[in-house]
Amino acid sequence: MTTVDDPAALTPDRARAAFRDGTVAPTSGWATGFTQTNLIAVPRDWAYDVLLFCQRNPRPCPVLDVTDPGSTSTVLAPGADLSRDLPSYRVWRDGELAEEVGDVSGLWPEDLVAFSIGCSFTFETGLLAAGVPLRHLEQGRNVSMYVTNRQCRPAGRLHGPMVVSMRYIPADRVAEAIRISGAMPAVHGAPVHAGDPADLGIADPGRPDFGDAVEPAAGDVPVFWACGVTPQAALMASRPPFAITHSPGHMFITDHRDSEYRVSV
Amino acid sequence: MTTVDDPAALTPDRARAAFRDGTVAPTSGWATGFTQTNLIAVPRDWAYDVLLFCQRNPRPCPVLDVTDPGSTSTVLAPGADLSRDLPSYRVWRDGELAEEVGDVSGLWPEDLVAFSIGCSFTFETGLLAAGVPLRHLEQGRNVSMYVTNRQCRPAGRLHGPMVVSMRYIPADRVAEAIRISGAMPAVHGAPVHAGDPADLGIADPGRPDFGDAVEPAAGDVPVFWACGVTPQAALMASRPPFAITHSPGHMFITDHRDSEYRVSV
Repeated sequence: MTTVDDPAALTPDRARAAFRDGTVAPTSGWATGFTQTNLIAVPRDWAYDVLLFCQRNPRPCPVLDVTDPGSTSTVLAPGADLSRDLPSYRVWRDGELAEEVGDVSGLWPEDLVAFSIGCSFTFETGLLAAGVPLRHLEQGRNVSMYVTNRQCRPAGRLHGPMVVSMRYIPADRVAEAIRISGAMPAVHGAPVHAGDPADLGIADPGRPDFGDAVEPAAGDVPVFWACGVTPQAALMASRPPFAITHSPGHMFITDHRDSEYRVSV
Repeated sequence: MTTVDDPAALTPDRARAAFRDGTVAPTSGWATGFTQTNLIAVPRDWAYDVLLFCQRNPRPCPVLDVTDPGSTSTVLAPGADLSRDLPSYRVWRDGELAEEVGDVSGLWPEDLVAFSIGCSFTFETGLLAAGVPLRHLEQGRNVSMYVTNRQCRPAGRLHGPMVVSMRYIPADRVAEAIRISGAMPAVHGAPVHAGDPADLGIADPGRPDFGDAVEPAAGDVPVFWACGVTPQAALMASRPPFAITHSPGHMFITDHRDSEYRVSV
């Protein structure tokens, strides 16, 4: 296992090499400015349902790449190996978590298709650059995520509610946070909701369904973005015979810069 | 057959009703401000390849909706019937054009999946609103389209070159045309090229592969956008046993406004 002194300054290939060599750590703050992705890998028989679910629900499920069956290569990082270069993986059998491991190269069937799904870490770079405070980072916590009362549009065997991430934003910076994230439709885009957790069916923002509780500062407003956990939750609810995903917070670090997903107008 | 006096002023449902009643006409200029789409319908066995080809080539192939197998309904126009509401259809067998008809409701197999693909007519509304002249409309012609020397990223059985549409734009309006179309990534987005047809392998802009030749005005520059004909060309080259498409220029008129596909930043 490699010791990493300054993970934020690493290039993506050196970060992936550290994970391949055995480092296990959440990737938030690693290789600053480079896009990280959610991983969902399923047998070819399930791939159309997953791809269609993503097409029908582009806000929570922005697809950045899909592999050919059996391949562990991605255009997002030529030379990388999706089965070895993430810090931690979850292996699912019949919709149940079977094991959590640091390498799945020996578990990758020849018909497996891997989806790389965009992640809200991408627009966080833009928010921080504009001086919009991110409370979960200030508090050293994972972002808060919630299952909402909004149903996704179903696709084949896949259906389920939209999952959102929440960030407390100072009321006078909400417009700017919306503008910055709205310019990145390929990585969740603008918020789906701002200001009223109850309207999304969230009884208590202090009790997230995934991630950590985060404390607001005075004058903060809760702002909600569609979340990349959505397709994973829908997939597991439909119980495919086999699947591999990243472990929460342990993302794939691509060679693409966050700025490449910004629409320039 | 209905007589239509002012097709530009029609609502989408009345335009579709005219086509359902037997009117056959190119849809350019119909129901101004409402989004029109390309239609590609294939058997379920081919649907994953088509959807993946589109995901891997989003500039030429922006997917706006995909139907469930056998369904002729689309979220783009609730109440519309994709098998009757276009002015003209092409039916393909083994990659060959078999017939061109005004109604395919009797030819729609129960496993057929229909893709609605974005169309550059959508950003033309924005160009016209900004006063950017569109020479093909001034000259009463179809837009010029060309097969380029740029290969799309293959997906399963589908591969082929990118097809582009070309518009002559006054040199001092090119930046504005790029800005306006670039804000609509779901309908081809910014141009893929400006100024040098030869670099795309286009020997003579006066001899398009599809559509009509258009005359430039003095000071015009040829600007090239990825074109929705691309997936249709790739599909036909791979010779599926059966497919239905729209006839060139005879698009599906949706209930969505062009402005809905603009990213606001």
